[in-house]
Amino acid sequence: MNRSSRLASRLVAALTLTLGLDVAPALAQSRPVSPLRQSVDSWRRANERQILDEAFTLFAMPNLANDSVAIRRVASHLLAAFAKRGFTTALLESPTGGPPAVFAERLTPGATRTIVLYAHYDGQPVAGAPWDGDPFTPALRRVQNGVAGDAVPLPAVGDTVDPNARIYARSASDDKGPIVAMLTAFDALDAQNRAPTVNVKVFLEGEEEAGSQHLGDLLRAHRDRLQGDAWFFMDGPVHVSGAPQVVLGVRGVVGVEVTLFGASRPLHSGHYGNWAPNPAVAAAHLIASMRDRNGRITIAGFHDDVRAPTMDEVTAGRALSATDDSVRRSLGLSRTEADGAALGERIMQPALNVRGIRAGGVGPSAANAVPTSASFSIDFRLVPDQDPARLQQVVNAHLRAQGYEVLTDAAAASARPDRERVALVQWDDGYRSVRTPFDAPVIGALQRVVADVYGRPPFVAPTLGGSLPLFHFADVFDAPLVTVPTVNADNSQHAPNENLRVGNLWDAIALVAAMVTELAPRWVDTRVVP
Amino acid sequence: MNRSSRLASRLVAALTLTLGLDVAPALAQSRPVSPLRQSVDSWRRANERQILDEAFTLFAMPNLANDSVAIRRVASHLLAAFAKRGFTTALLESPTGGPPAVFAERLTPGATRTIVLYAHYDGQPVAGAPWDGDPFTPALRRVQNGVAGDAVPLPAVGDTVDPNARIYARSASDDKGPIVAMLTAFDALDAQNRAPTVNVKVFLEGEEEAGSQHLGDLLRAHRDRLQGDAWFFMDGPVHVSGAPQVVLGVRGVVGVEVTLFGASRPLHSGHYGNWAPNPAVAAAHLIASMRDRNGRITIAGFHDDVRAPTMDEVTAGRALSATDDSVRRSLGLSRTEADGAALGERIMQPALNVRGIRAGGVGPSAANAVPTSASFSIDFRLVPDQDPARLQQVVNAHLRAQGYEVLTDAAAASARPDRERVALVQWDDGYRSVRTPFDAPVIGALQRVVADVYGRPPFVAPTLGGSLPLFHFADVFDAPLVTVPTVNADNSQHAPNENLRVGNLWDAIALVAAMVTELAPRWVDTRVVP
Repeated sequence: MNRSSRLASRLVAALTLTLGLDVAPALAQSRPVSPLRQSVDSWRRANERQILDEAFTLFAMPNLANDSVAIRRVASHLLAAFAKRGFTTALLESPTGGPPAVFAERLTPGATRTIVLYAHYDGQPVAGAPWDGDPFTPALRRVQNGVAGDAVPLPAVGDTVDPNARIYARSASDDKGPIVAMLTAFDALDAQNRAPTVNVKVFLEGEEEAGSQHLGDLLRAHRDRLQGDAWFFMDGPVHVSGAPQVVLGVRGVVGVEVTLFGASRPLHSGHYGNWAPNPAVAAAHLIASMRDRNGRITIAGFHDDVRAPTMDEVTAGRALSATDDSVRRSLGLSRTEADGAALGERIMQPALNVRGIRAGGVGPSAANAVPTSASFSIDFRLVPDQDPARLQQVVNAHLRAQGYEVLTDAAAASARPDRERVALVQWDDGYRSVRTPFDAPVIGALQRVVADVYGRPPFVAPTLGGSLPLFHFADVFDAPLVTVPTVNADNSQHAPNENLRVGNLWDAIALVAAMVTELAPRWVDTRVVP
Repeated sequence: MNRSSRLASRLVAALTLTLGLDVAPALAQSRPVSPLRQSVDSWRRANERQILDEAFTLFAMPNLANDSVAIRRVASHLLAAFAKRGFTTALLESPTGGPPAVFAERLTPGATRTIVLYAHYDGQPVAGAPWDGDPFTPALRRVQNGVAGDAVPLPAVGDTVDPNARIYARSASDDKGPIVAMLTAFDALDAQNRAPTVNVKVFLEGEEEAGSQHLGDLLRAHRDRLQGDAWFFMDGPVHVSGAPQVVLGVRGVVGVEVTLFGASRPLHSGHYGNWAPNPAVAAAHLIASMRDRNGRITIAGFHDDVRAPTMDEVTAGRALSATDDSVRRSLGLSRTEADGAALGERIMQPALNVRGIRAGGVGPSAANAVPTSASFSIDFRLVPDQDPARLQQVVNAHLRAQGYEVLTDAAAASARPDRERVALVQWDDGYRSVRTPFDAPVIGALQRVVADVYGRPPFVAPTLGGSLPLFHFADVFDAPLVTVPTVNADNSQHAPNENLRVGNLWDAIALVAAMVTELAPRWVDTRVVP
């Protein structure tokens, strides 16, 4: 494609997205779903109990990447589940250690395209705020006033369940649900003798929530086996409106834990208050120096490498934000950061999120003492072309400019004779952002397949706000990397009471079935208005 | 005393204190302790095991003011203990409820003066940072590198123990230790047939650490019974150098819990970071807006009512700070707030201490989520003539100026459709500062008695940095209110691993014995250089 036709294509895309924005609610019911979806749904309705039983079994399995026994138990379970669907399976180990990836492959005679389906089978920690129930005892419940309400009985065999019910469990949406969808899609196709039209590879990562430390080595070690014409990442939520999305990129991420110090023992706040340095106040000033109240990052040099979004991307970002007002209302907010700027635009900017602060005690635990230290945790979200290693240096330089000596050894820091001048700073490695171009041929084909499955065209998002270690894939493979999220936007992933809306699981099953059968015939297209 | 003689007296006092400062270490060994102290010590050395046993029994009793069963159990125990020493005892109830005060009275035939000894028998909460051992299982241990070290065996009956050993227990120093000193002083005097020269009243408060809500009503209800010529408050630590102190005032205090809000459910920091308001960042900015990094309170109007310290007070405050450098070193600090200003001067200023902050999670508990709320806890320390009720209005006005609507109802605040604009603010009542004048006759007498007991003159501090509800006493009684602290400065009161140095308990026993026998003959004096 030459330059002018690419531009024309982009303009069509932008127009499509703008129209998609304005008329999405109307379109939602205006387009019939495809015969394939109808037949998958028909099979699914007769098998909901069996699907939920299989999901509950998987959701009940603890899956913290750092728990090597638990995580390998999940991997073994998944190998067996894919083998049952006629896949050739293997555990892929990284030469440098860590949890294995689950690999499964099902070849289609005569197929000329190979797709790779990605999800991760590890999950976030469950510590922190309390769960309403046990995170590894899946529970089917209604949502009432935005929180988990009455229990919903599992359907009898052959019966159906309210698609608005939720399955509450850690990783139900992030990403065990999409894995169940992959498995079930093949059950549905096989039951109806519908053959895939592509070779299908499944790649399930086991340490995404723990930072994907070994993923790059693992991909390089198994590069030949993992080649495909496109990678589809089944992770993250659909649009908050419930509309499907195709996502062309992800933000990068890098995290840091910072601890500041006061006196080496807790001091009575009366006898020493206003004299002994208070590290909680120091932490407040340090955080305030990094980010203003309106969300603007005020660290010198932080934005130097930010690649400005293209016009396509800005337009698409705004299109995604038509529902911002209703989302704000549902969250109890009258205003969001950056003077209420569109969410779709904000996620094309880097972010500084304070994940937590801890110092002393509050409420019934508050004692009249000056705390000895204050810790806070930050995750930075990165955009093209920010480099995590450079940002670490930029932030460390900011801490120095604020008067702190940056140390990385906890024992050395707390033993210093000038504790009040020390910042204990512990970075994770993080990873960079990746974006796939708007005009890759598979994108147009995928838009049509998604529209057929959902009965409405997808939004095409230039980037997901969240992070996936896509850079590992971009470093090793040339194939387009496309994220196809399926779970509900209000799934509370990474937080207490994570849940998966049952209807979103049904959609995901139909989507996988359609991708493996109806994508290949359309793949030759350039971008098409769906 | 006329005006010029009062001024002369003040100059002498200031000179005394300045000399006291410069030569205190030399004086420490230069002056023999009195014969009374020698005889009390002699008795005590033969009875250390029995004294420690009685102390351990008291220290093992939980004494949170809000635990009405536990606190009354302590009160009953103390009634019996004073009765055993020939005191007439009574539980004094407030007409408005709350824990009772323990009252004990021992009249001396022919005495013309009555002194009232104060301590509180309730203690701080033990929640929060972890204790090295159980807070209510008293343990005799060495201090090694500033922390609790090897266990020290209890002495056999008739043997002595290293006076540098510490008793670790909640309230060991604040204030159960001084109560044990009162009891034991009478044992020592009675054993040696030394009669007191004053009538002695003991008043032990039961809710000092819980804010003394019922104390004013209690004092008014029992006003006649509690009349005396001077009140001595046996609370707080001696000077950090180990030198004795006489303290003429206290700071007031008022506490507040503030909660700010973000979205009504935790949001993925990738998908919503930089868009959803982050209450941890908002809390950081709010704290930073109230107090600069150097300890200066930046709330408009906060200092309006501050009475400037007198020249006497400033001089005395500086005298107390000769050891600031060594204290800093012992705390791992190279610098303190207000550019290293003297501790003794700083405590004559109001303070804003952040007791704690809580939002989201840090370290292993950190999740990539935007927290839904952030809470912080502050205690303000007040000086004459600041009024806690007015300061609450001043601070609330500051919060409003920062853009927050101030609410006091937690349920209403979290249910608001503009959660990001709301500050949930919960004040305690607090109380004002009190200072007794330098030139009250009892002060000179007390200085001589203290010098005789310790073998060195006391520092006279215009105010304690900490807070005691002295205003309740000043409102009801005309008598001078004098604080006579006895416990070690590094006692970690209000914090984990509170401890009482055994030698400080021995000093306190001798001091009480001296106050009840040797104060009255000197009381006629005006201020005297000891």
